Amino acid sequence: MSKFLTERLSGLTPYTPGEQPKDMQYIKLNTNESPFPPSESVSVAVLNECRKLQLYSDPEVTRAREKIAQIYNVKPSQVIVTNGSDEVLNFAFMAFADEKNPLVFPDITYGFYPVFAELNHIPFTEIPLVSDFTINPHDYIGINKTVVIANPNAPTGIALSLGDIESIVKSNPNNVVIIDEAYVDFGAQSAASLVDTYDNLLVIQTFSKSRSMAGARLGFGLGNEKLISDLNTIRYSTNPYNVNRMTEAAGVAALQDNSYYMNNCKTIIENREWTVHELENLGFEVLPSKANFVFAKSDKIDGKTLYLELKKRGILIRHFTKEKICQFNRITIGTIEQMQKLIETISEILQEN
Amino acid sequence: MSKFLTERLSGLTPYTPGEQPKDMQYIKLNTNESPFPPSESVSVAVLNECRKLQLYSDPEVTRAREKIAQIYNVKPSQVIVTNGSDEVLNFAFMAFADEKNPLVFPDITYGFYPVFAELNHIPFTEIPLVSDFTINPHDYIGINKTVVIANPNAPTGIALSLGDIESIVKSNPNNVVIIDEAYVDFGAQSAASLVDTYDNLLVIQTFSKSRSMAGARLGFGLGNEKLISDLNTIRYSTNPYNVNRMTEAAGVAALQDNSYYMNNCKTIIENREWTVHELENLGFEVLPSKANFVFAKSDKIDGKTLYLELKKRGILIRHFTKEKICQFNRITIGTIEQMQKLIETISEILQEN
Repeated sequence: MSKFLTERLSGLTPYTPGEQPKDMQYIKLNTNESPFPPSESVSVAVLNECRKLQLYSDPEVTRAREKIAQIYNVKPSQVIVTNGSDEVLNFAFMAFADEKNPLVFPDITYGFYPVFAELNHIPFTEIPLVSDFTINPHDYIGINKTVVIANPNAPTGIALSLGDIESIVKSNPNNVVIIDEAYVDFGAQSAASLVDTYDNLLVIQTFSKSRSMAGARLGFGLGNEKLISDLNTIRYSTNPYNVNRMTEAAGVAALQDNSYYMNNCKTIIENREWTVHELENLGFEVLPSKANFVFAKSDKIDGKTLYLELKKRGILIRHFTKEKICQFNRITIGTIEQMQKLIETISEILQEN
Repeated sequence: MSKFLTERLSGLTPYTPGEQPKDMQYIKLNTNESPFPPSESVSVAVLNECRKLQLYSDPEVTRAREKIAQIYNVKPSQVIVTNGSDEVLNFAFMAFADEKNPLVFPDITYGFYPVFAELNHIPFTEIPLVSDFTINPHDYIGINKTVVIANPNAPTGIALSLGDIESIVKSNPNNVVIIDEAYVDFGAQSAASLVDTYDNLLVIQTFSKSRSMAGARLGFGLGNEKLISDLNTIRYSTNPYNVNRMTEAAGVAALQDNSYYMNNCKTIIENREWTVHELENLGFEVLPSKANFVFAKSDKIDGKTLYLELKKRGILIRHFTKEKICQFNRITIGTIEQMQKLIETISEILQEN
């Protein structure tokens, strides 16, 4: 820390992204990336932009907004597009929460929420999950605070039903309810269909998981026009050209190939069900996941030990040190070959222990 | 504005980017883009990344930092890389200015500075330029506030000498001095060589102008390791994957072709000198520019009228409504053919008026 850092940021603890070790080639099951590359037309669209890189990108991100609007059945004015969904999450926290409208979110959820809250000096309450790691919707109904819920939740993978989400949104008409649907395409129900009905609902999605574009950085928010307009005020006050030409073109091309990505999601769901079955056969407890990862623990091996033993053998999974979940590991669902290798390696580790 | 927008942001006036009309094909001399496309190897490097877009980008942006460090003769730990230089400017405002360390910058400068200040609730003072539109360095010497100076300044194009910059940095040891060098490659002196000497100096540059990559969004900051570390704390608290794979690869490739871009800068400087000469022949007053634009006015035609007349004829330049400069227009320097067309068209307009 320099002596120049402003006092209000001096206590800030940044987010810790999943490790990206470069010492060897790992099977990467630690950051919830897709095992499938983007569709062919993405490269073609990107290459076409390379000839025009000297020109600024479109600050209105028109083409991507129009295509997203078409797929999610909303108007382009109900869409904001950002440099990954972390950016729109941060904008939403800035826009819709403050001391008068503090935040609530589960105690076990995406680790960036408390970081955004601290960065923006927003008071927040973390509501404990139920003992089976589900979210109790009644904890949020009529709470009268700005709500953020990841659905499916991370790192548990457990989803709330659309009915439960609607009850939360409906019962908090004076506060924005942010539903972070980063993992929704792997089997949960999206709340996108509700944005016309509720002026306080903001749905956030990303191209990082189901659309194989974590490295391109493209996220978006869907909501009432006025909510989106507020978020755009912040976007135009920080970085009006936040989405570069190549990323916008890649996103538009990906949406044109939507069935390729939705088929990949089906494959990942199948691989997930296979993995759950195999893990259970090995004696693991696996939470019921609707995401492209599973959260699992075993009485036979300590969570951190399993993580370290797998890493030694060239497989990365994600371990969290928080006490309540330190016996679990979050395992991204990859190709069936990767999952077979994982199960095989875990069997070996369990036999050796 | 929605009823949910937090009070502290409800008065925010966002930045207005230069217009990007789509009604016809314009000669675009309004947003200081390069008229030259990126070098060939940029496309090759980007295409190579398209196959890996399903994987997150490197949160440490290692390759770009190493290459920038090599060119600017600093250590990689003295470099932060961002989604355009607007992002690092915003981070720097957040990190190094607050009520105890208010900001100062010229009254005529990059229009984003007051927006960032308002967004972050930082008090600021705008110091009037001298009547010849230069910055008087003595206005900033020993001022004991966080200083931001664009060098060359925009939209005037006028540069301060390295000696003057050093005096400002040296005389404010308890505050960070931010030198925004977006346009430095067109004839001004960079303060990059001073970052090892002064722990309070932050130099900010961009690939948008001299490196033909406005549409790729790549900016960077150079400074003391501790300053850079503070900025990274904010980066990791907002968007650790802020630079996508394609942009990082494009930036690294561009730096490998550095001489191509530096030659383009020479051409733009030649075209600028030609344009200044021709404008003066037409009776314009042109401020002495070290940037890829000129700031010019004529007694024969009102600033706004000239802008509108040129737009009608398919040429976009940038007009600002601020009283002190509303008789001027900012004209980006393009190819010699574009500048010839501009001069020809201005002659016609002057004859018709």
